[in-house]
Amino acid sequence: MNHAAEYSAGRAGETATATALAILEQRFGPRLSRGRAVREQHGHTLTWIANQPPDAVVFAETADDVADVVRVCAEHGVPLIAFGAGTSIEGQVNAPLGGISLDLSAMNRIISFNDSDLDCVVEAGVTRQQLNDHLHDRGLFFPVDPGASNATLGGMASTRASGTTTVRYGTMRDNVINVTAVMADGSVVRTARRARKSASGYDLTHLFVGSEGTLGVITELTLRLYGIPESILAAVCPFETIEGACNAVITAIQLGLGIARMELLDEVQVEACNSYSGLALKVAPTLFLEFHGSPAGTREQVESFREIAEGEGALGFDWAEQVEDRGRLWKARHDAYFAGRSLRPGVDAFATDVCVPISRLAECVRETHADILENSLIAPLVGHVGDGNFHVLPLVDMADADEVARVSGFLERLVARALAMDGTCTGEHGVGMGKIEFLEAEHGPGLEVMRTIKRALDPTGILNPGKMLGNLQRE
Amino acid sequence: MNHAAEYSAGRAGETATATALAILEQRFGPRLSRGRAVREQHGHTLTWIANQPPDAVVFAETADDVADVVRVCAEHGVPLIAFGAGTSIEGQVNAPLGGISLDLSAMNRIISFNDSDLDCVVEAGVTRQQLNDHLHDRGLFFPVDPGASNATLGGMASTRASGTTTVRYGTMRDNVINVTAVMADGSVVRTARRARKSASGYDLTHLFVGSEGTLGVITELTLRLYGIPESILAAVCPFETIEGACNAVITAIQLGLGIARMELLDEVQVEACNSYSGLALKVAPTLFLEFHGSPAGTREQVESFREIAEGEGALGFDWAEQVEDRGRLWKARHDAYFAGRSLRPGVDAFATDVCVPISRLAECVRETHADILENSLIAPLVGHVGDGNFHVLPLVDMADADEVARVSGFLERLVARALAMDGTCTGEHGVGMGKIEFLEAEHGPGLEVMRTIKRALDPTGILNPGKMLGNLQRE
Repeated sequence: MNHAAEYSAGRAGETATATALAILEQRFGPRLSRGRAVREQHGHTLTWIANQPPDAVVFAETADDVADVVRVCAEHGVPLIAFGAGTSIEGQVNAPLGGISLDLSAMNRIISFNDSDLDCVVEAGVTRQQLNDHLHDRGLFFPVDPGASNATLGGMASTRASGTTTVRYGTMRDNVINVTAVMADGSVVRTARRARKSASGYDLTHLFVGSEGTLGVITELTLRLYGIPESILAAVCPFETIEGACNAVITAIQLGLGIARMELLDEVQVEACNSYSGLALKVAPTLFLEFHGSPAGTREQVESFREIAEGEGALGFDWAEQVEDRGRLWKARHDAYFAGRSLRPGVDAFATDVCVPISRLAECVRETHADILENSLIAPLVGHVGDGNFHVLPLVDMADADEVARVSGFLERLVARALAMDGTCTGEHGVGMGKIEFLEAEHGPGLEVMRTIKRALDPTGILNPGKMLGNLQRE
Repeated sequence: MNHAAEYSAGRAGETATATALAILEQRFGPRLSRGRAVREQHGHTLTWIANQPPDAVVFAETADDVADVVRVCAEHGVPLIAFGAGTSIEGQVNAPLGGISLDLSAMNRIISFNDSDLDCVVEAGVTRQQLNDHLHDRGLFFPVDPGASNATLGGMASTRASGTTTVRYGTMRDNVINVTAVMADGSVVRTARRARKSASGYDLTHLFVGSEGTLGVITELTLRLYGIPESILAAVCPFETIEGACNAVITAIQLGLGIARMELLDEVQVEACNSYSGLALKVAPTLFLEFHGSPAGTREQVESFREIAEGEGALGFDWAEQVEDRGRLWKARHDAYFAGRSLRPGVDAFATDVCVPISRLAECVRETHADILENSLIAPLVGHVGDGNFHVLPLVDMADADEVARVSGFLERLVARALAMDGTCTGEHGVGMGKIEFLEAEHGPGLEVMRTIKRALDPTGILNPGKMLGNLQRE
């Protein structure tokens, strides 16, 4: 699972790195840190990939700071890793080849806010929570919700984040209007105007969204906003079978009900939530739903969904309107990650995700369950089912080589299963270092197109090397 | 206005072209045509750019045909222009450097249809009308509606088409799930899986959507589908002022009413429609609206919109539910283009479009009106106002050099005005040859990023040369 060695660029020579660091130290003074703790915090990963700290961390405060760091790194061939909040979970911020981690978290200004256009311009280090706090009194919100409330919007754009509301509001792909980025050659590109659509030139915005810092460093973004719905209802609905839950979701989507959240928890996960959060949910595959709209509209959605669910073997249907009641109803979903981990305290968790066409979701989940059982794993499952996307959280004792091997095999089969169903190796976690090995199988000749673009835009390979694209040598 | 000369690749040598044609004639027999009428039909443009026919037209029937033509053109350095229905209007299908026009209209198979996933796979030559006819009995539709019912879906993807329903359903950008394309090096790339989202690798789908055949030849697409709404209501609403109409639209969007179509016709256009279609509409800036949803939902939308409109100086509000009544109500909008042209029969029309943030729309339209007046032009205006996008149709006698110059100046100021308002030089018509000169002003250093990508993926410049990117020589 060590891909760094495959990467064409070598670790920058020690002299080159030393020179670059000396220049940057001159420029940034105390805003450059070589301290071990700071470096490790920036080389940290929330998954099984080992910590790989950079040689130094620079704390940027302005776009000019970013441009200066890029220029020095380019000149000396030193790797540069953009860092937001470090909540990515496939090793996107690791520094396998050393270099500079460029911390953008202090670039957290909300630059402008255009309520007629329902958009805003923010610096890359603004967090999701910060933006929503800012918007709340204006009756607006930014919908993409990957779970980590402190994720930065620059980081979310870079990993093409999505989450619980994607079924209604889309992913970062759908909600980033433009980005400003510093390219490897030092030029500053704004990928699009603020107009809602354009047929002018290549779509550079979407090229940046999901590129994990390998094409440029995002310093600023324009984002789509939405009005906070007049009425929000929440519901919880357990099903006899996981197929029933999936079929209810498919029907709801086909009818265009526009449900805002549709989350599936499998039985293992529900059991974990009961025990962790002191709940008494029926142990069954369960959908957690949220409905947004006008008061009449959400009632209509709830009634339509209840009818659909009854036809698919629903075992109950609780709903609530008041904030605190909705919170209580959704408590299990909110605590799912920690509840899952609590099934085996003290061991590691290999958070992973795949995404398939929703018509294949029930089948993919069923086969995955069988695989978990056969390999005696403990691995709760949570799905953004309206997108065909689900997470599995195998819990693994890293000291138990046999178990690690069983989990590795499970993860490989999970991806192969998703790809065979015309799905993707990752719906929202991204590639980082953790999923490089699957890109050839997923993209075929498309991977070489990606590598060609990377080589053209970052010829010396300084931008987040060792991530996403594997071997950049021409074949 | 001749940009061909700026393009780096020369016209292929006559010998190279002759050799390529001989090879292709061998391979395609009667499916290769050198006939003048066929060539002119394929070098045709619906706007003011002169007809520039290719040296020959090849009629492809399979993806293998496409791959063979690409290979021969690449080997001999001969320009290759993908052709769908030829309804683009900025010279996208012209052959300024000669070469082969590759007609994909016979690749019109609907390959698969996945109603659980609300998507379908089609060949590039399937038309919008053909697809919707196919889907109608299944209760589904494909929403992107650029006006030309016979536009091919491959062409619509290539120009990033949009239209009247974009405010609710998005553009081709939002509705293409993946494309299969033959690259300049002959490799066949499928840009994404059929899953609804993915965080795996660069977003090649969006790179192809809007690339106007300059990066590869699209042979197949997967598209998003939608359920035909249970209830559709149409309405027509004249306003005292164009600002009032724009403000009503902004408020409707802010409230998330989800109106499916919001079209603005200015007074000149309304007058043209009255005269052309024998109507008696009040001569005022008028919104044409369509509401999609459940029966209760659309009534609610209509009532909400009526209230908003009254507050913004609406002079009336007619609405209808039955198909034929809706058709009658919307007749003016449907006939707008021909009605506009009928204001000065026999002269040419310079169809153009720009797009600005909707907060700037009223201002942009007002300044544009003043400009039309000052320059004594006849130029009706139709806008997809929910997107901030509008079309102007200056009518011009090409034999009148002074008038041509006045129209040219008007078009340049129109783009400059849109760019100054953070808008784009084209919302949906694309760049082709007609808007190359504005890309530098719109994209700045981003244009060089686009050129770098083009050079990397099509190093010999055979794919639709002379379009979109201007001079490809490194500066």
